[in-house]
Amino acid sequence: MTYELYYWDGIQGRGEFVRLALEDADTDYIDVTREPGRGTGEMLKLMESTSEAHVPFAPPFLQDGGQIISHVANILFYLGPRLKLLPKDETLRWFANGLQLTITDFIAEVHDTHHPIATSKYYEEQKEEAKARAFEFVTNRVPKFLGYFERVLTHNPEGSGHSVGNATTYVDLSLFQVIEGLRYAFPRAMRHYEPRYLELLKLHASVKARPNIAAYLASPRRLAFNENGIFRRYPELDIGP
Amino acid sequence: MTYELYYWDGIQGRGEFVRLALEDADTDYIDVTREPGRGTGEMLKLMESTSEAHVPFAPPFLQDGGQIISHVANILFYLGPRLKLLPKDETLRWFANGLQLTITDFIAEVHDTHHPIATSKYYEEQKEEAKARAFEFVTNRVPKFLGYFERVLTHNPEGSGHSVGNATTYVDLSLFQVIEGLRYAFPRAMRHYEPRYLELLKLHASVKARPNIAAYLASPRRLAFNENGIFRRYPELDIGP
Repeated sequence: MTYELYYWDGIQGRGEFVRLALEDADTDYIDVTREPGRGTGEMLKLMESTSEAHVPFAPPFLQDGGQIISHVANILFYLGPRLKLLPKDETLRWFANGLQLTITDFIAEVHDTHHPIATSKYYEEQKEEAKARAFEFVTNRVPKFLGYFERVLTHNPEGSGHSVGNATTYVDLSLFQVIEGLRYAFPRAMRHYEPRYLELLKLHASVKARPNIAAYLASPRRLAFNENGIFRRYPELDIGP
Repeated sequence: MTYELYYWDGIQGRGEFVRLALEDADTDYIDVTREPGRGTGEMLKLMESTSEAHVPFAPPFLQDGGQIISHVANILFYLGPRLKLLPKDETLRWFANGLQLTITDFIAEVHDTHHPIATSKYYEEQKEEAKARAFEFVTNRVPKFLGYFERVLTHNPEGSGHSVGNATTYVDLSLFQVIEGLRYAFPRAMRHYEPRYLELLKLHASVKARPNIAAYLASPRRLAFNENGIFRRYPELDIGP
């Protein structure tokens, strides 16, 4: 059965963490809202369904046969063993899920740098508050989260090349995307911080060089970052630490 | 092996979702930072350890023998089968985890009503922005989330008394806590909204009446809500919808 991924058309957003796993594993999947003849209407219809028992709160969600799985970390925990992007060891699986949920929290904070007050309002309506929140984010939150992931890599008893165990997991793919996004949205901060996080940079480079990831990044399936997504480049928020 | 829960002393916070599951199942556990002779120092020491490979980013986390599991939804997904608070059916388990992650997102939004700009600053330093964010929260986010959970209960093919399957899960216990917290922090909003969400109220009442939960709520182990936790009662944020 071909996996069907539902996410907002036109942005990488949270869907990208799932796409990277599907692409790395070279798995057949349909990106439903970008599919000719399907589109966003089909996603919204499913979300408003009164006959489907397991309707998700928000995209992204994955349909696998009759089953719907929502939330990035949940989708990845479900796909991990199927795509061979999780180790067999149970202890390492729970650790991986904890790391992915830490990434989830970080991504929510990235979103809130441009929407600190109301998701229902435009960025331009909360620009001053966004500057204050971005200052906090760049000053305190970026080093706290990146420092944590650097420590995880450094202390991995099976070698610093991976965050979990001795092979690539979806957590590694997600950390690649975190670095990509931060470089796009906060280039000044990243120029400042990157020399501190050499293991993370090494991981980013090794994921980028994986053949299926490299092919994906060069393909039209990889959307460009833009100012509708989660990582947005607003010069006034690109604060120097 | 006795479970050891690590969380900030003195607040319900995110730890409470785990406590409710452990208490409902009448399981032996140690609330480490509240244990005489142990305390918060022991938690911080573990978080700063350089010998422990699976150090968590933040509390709460659970130690089960040699294993550390972090993040509420991850801890509950781990405990669910062990405490018989998840159905056996795999499809329902993935659905339950998705619901718990939706609760996680909602709780993060509750936190940000009083800390919209910087967790590193006092509430009093971001009071004006907090009012704006609380207005959005009460006006748009509360009905969006509660409406979603009401719909989940209403459309449960196995009966509206539970959110997942035909028996109590940790998701039901967490929804009880969501209602408790909202009533504490946003009493005006809740008086306004509650008549819309009768299935949620029914679930809240049925969880509250469960013998182990009732005993827990009456015990000194249940801390009172206060203004150091996630749900805080600030009259200026208790906006009427």
